[in-house]
Amino acid sequence: MAYIAVPEGVPGIRSLVMFRPETGKHLYALAQVLLRGDSPLTPAERELIATHVSARNNCAFCRDSHAAAARELFGLERGVVDCLIENQASDSISLKLSALLKIAAKVQLNGREVQPEDIGQAQHNGATDREIHDTVLIAATFSMFNRYVDGLNSLTPTDPAEYAEMGKRLASVGYVPPSQPPKN
Amino acid sequence: MAYIAVPEGVPGIRSLVMFRPETGKHLYALAQVLLRGDSPLTPAERELIATHVSARNNCAFCRDSHAAAARELFGLERGVVDCLIENQASDSISLKLSALLKIAAKVQLNGREVQPEDIGQAQHNGATDREIHDTVLIAATFSMFNRYVDGLNSLTPTDPAEYAEMGKRLASVGYVPPSQPPKN
Repeated sequence: MAYIAVPEGVPGIRSLVMFRPETGKHLYALAQVLLRGDSPLTPAERELIATHVSARNNCAFCRDSHAAAARELFGLERGVVDCLIENQASDSISLKLSALLKIAAKVQLNGREVQPEDIGQAQHNGATDREIHDTVLIAATFSMFNRYVDGLNSLTPTDPAEYAEMGKRLASVGYVPPSQPPKN
Repeated sequence: MAYIAVPEGVPGIRSLVMFRPETGKHLYALAQVLLRGDSPLTPAERELIATHVSARNNCAFCRDSHAAAARELFGLERGVVDCLIENQASDSISLKLSALLKIAAKVQLNGREVQPEDIGQAQHNGATDREIHDTVLIAATFSMFNRYVDGLNSLTPTDPAEYAEMGKRLASVGYVPPSQPPKN
């Protein structure tokens, strides 16, 4: 049960955003532009970075919902998502994406962990400034979402079918804040 | 020097937001509503939570700029800011705020570190759900800002006078995105 009085039965961040829509609307707008807006990284790659950081933070709700979104977006190559979560190599991950995921994993620990060599390796494999920027901001943003969701102990479903459904919604509709109950 | 080509001479997050204003505008909007909008916590208390998390993440830019803002907002009680950074007790910190700062420090580590006892201690000292929510979201948000600023190695001034100036601006004007250079 969540630590504060959020709407019952609503999972994860949606319940927190319904509790406090004034901040929630900016969180959703940030997620939408960062994960679905214009970027040299595909939405599938960006969801993979979000999944990687969430898994490393042990945030089950974010890991499983964004893994489900990544699977939808990767389509036939969806196996890459489980490889990443289980720390197994995958031919579907390019050297560039691998270098970016390494940067994301360092950001998950602390921004100061990122070294010039990490940036150099990504650039050597073709990463642009925009790709490096978006990787760092996605990793930083999920370091926030993971803490928000777990720090307030929000509802984390255990049924994989619920996450599969979330993944479909996130892949097709994107990040749309939950509608608010009518005020009396 | 920053890892990506941001405007030269612009410190910290402002340079990153100028590089990518589409995400930056949501980051500033979030900071404004979270640190200056309606809340049972005063802006000074909220800046103190931001400073506490930034200090624990060793993010010098965020620590020193938000410490400067907190000093401005605390006025005559500004000594509380240095006590917090130096882990010294202060009579200016109520039992309620002390319990909330403890929750923020746990969120800085990982959301899952927050235990029911931590929430119970805050409630016992008078904290409401909104105060607990805002504390967790501020701590989570600065876990993001700290990583964004340091992960891209953005410019961190060393002159205390620069931070004092930033603190005055943040206390009086709040969080306003930097203006963009005209596009040719």
